[in-house]
Amino acid sequence: MTAGATVDSGFQTWKVTLSYDGTDFRGWQVQPGERTIQGELQDALGRITGETPLPQGSGRTDAGVHALAQVASFALRAPIPPENLHRALNRTLPSSIRILDARTMPSGFHARHSAISKIYEYRVWEEKRECVDICPPFLARYVCACPWSLDREKLDAAAAAFLGEHDFASFAASDPDLTTRKEATARDEDVPDDIGPRSALRTIFASAWETQQNETGNLLVYRVRGDGFLHHMVRNLVGTMIEVGRGALKSTEIPAIISARSRSAAGPTAPARGLFLHSVQYE
Amino acid sequence: MTAGATVDSGFQTWKVTLSYDGTDFRGWQVQPGERTIQGELQDALGRITGETPLPQGSGRTDAGVHALAQVASFALRAPIPPENLHRALNRTLPSSIRILDARTMPSGFHARHSAISKIYEYRVWEEKRECVDICPPFLARYVCACPWSLDREKLDAAAAAFLGEHDFASFAASDPDLTTRKEATARDEDVPDDIGPRSALRTIFASAWETQQNETGNLLVYRVRGDGFLHHMVRNLVGTMIEVGRGALKSTEIPAIISARSRSAAGPTAPARGLFLHSVQYE
Repeated sequence: MTAGATVDSGFQTWKVTLSYDGTDFRGWQVQPGERTIQGELQDALGRITGETPLPQGSGRTDAGVHALAQVASFALRAPIPPENLHRALNRTLPSSIRILDARTMPSGFHARHSAISKIYEYRVWEEKRECVDICPPFLARYVCACPWSLDREKLDAAAAAFLGEHDFASFAASDPDLTTRKEATARDEDVPDDIGPRSALRTIFASAWETQQNETGNLLVYRVRGDGFLHHMVRNLVGTMIEVGRGALKSTEIPAIISARSRSAAGPTAPARGLFLHSVQYE
Repeated sequence: MTAGATVDSGFQTWKVTLSYDGTDFRGWQVQPGERTIQGELQDALGRITGETPLPQGSGRTDAGVHALAQVASFALRAPIPPENLHRALNRTLPSSIRILDARTMPSGFHARHSAISKIYEYRVWEEKRECVDICPPFLARYVCACPWSLDREKLDAAAAAFLGEHDFASFAASDPDLTTRKEATARDEDVPDDIGPRSALRTIFASAWETQQNETGNLLVYRVRGDGFLHHMVRNLVGTMIEVGRGALKSTEIPAIISARSRSAAGPTAPARGLFLHSVQYE
């Protein structure tokens, strides 16, 4: 159901902004027999309004990935004041999914098609005392605990090397079943339809690290804004930057890694639990 | 097995300080077929040393209660450098339980008997916008999300009313099976043996609120230090203070609530997820 096709038949287009702890979900997308964010939101809408539109996310997040402000759109026939839908959704959803905002939109709005850029955040916990593994249990679900000490200057140089427009094929999931698996998995996670699933050209507008905290260790936060991201792309960028930060790779090798257009040229995939969809930008 | 009885037979007494996210555990104490902190620690010791002493905690924490720095003691025959046991435990335990420190102690040390006081912390999330229920999903496991706005001056007055030595029977779990249930549940959660399980006299040395954070809401943190706490006592103190903070009860009524020595005189029990064992003090 698209917003454009339904406006004449009395449907109202909605935009909701939501935050979730992805630890206990099998990602965004509805899957039979699995707990997913999209599925929980659809169920909640059904319980509140009797209508069960499939909410369209700005992009899919994988199992274990979190969101600070994901955006979803859907259309409802029921007339309901935004404040009431907002409150009812938060009363119905589990506490690990929270609606931050709910509003009606012009019928052309679509959470994915209308997005102009997105920001992802990746959190790395760097141990102060190596080899003792004391990542606070209250952070463990939300960071990649890194056993190495990382050089901030090297991380910064690596982050800068990704800026601009590049073919990011070296950082896309190298799934052997890519061409045969169901569309949901095979497609890039959030590429606009007009680019097409096979192009790996993406523009990175901002890419930088920040040290946020300092207790028994450092919380290193990477934030990246781009016009789209391939499947696993942020986790692969981070896995590669960690190699640079710990001295196993030089940041000057990154241009050649990009040029290789081969997943095996880049570093490993950082774990899902450190990744947050930070926000989605619209016109 | 007590440290005193075993010192002659080649056992070494150990003290470990540990932090845990209690959400996914049935509390501290070993229970058949349930995941508990004590059970996980005993299993990890068994896998590392082949010995399975039952670690004695400074006190029991209930299902869903967390610890920033719980203390446990046990005796081991295996000679193992503290740094090695520390590292091995963190490699063996789940990421939701972390050993912060591991050291050997004189044979008389016992995590509960040797403790002179304890600090508990309770975290309340106070919504800025009432009735919308936007407690961040990354906080939801670690706070009581309070739907009312709370008056800090009233909370402070209520907290001060608990200072000193009182009979806290009005704030002890009013379990109808108290006298018949197994010792583990019937006993006060952390009363030293010499006081005896039936006395409700406790001394509170410090009791104060602090506002720690300010985003879409306020994080109100209550911290209380005492020589011992009855079962559910901190959660019952907090439940009563919330009644005062929201205006349903006056702080000047607290002395009468204490004097009543009746659970029904006090406020409700605040949920487990907001409670943290903050630290344990020894000579």
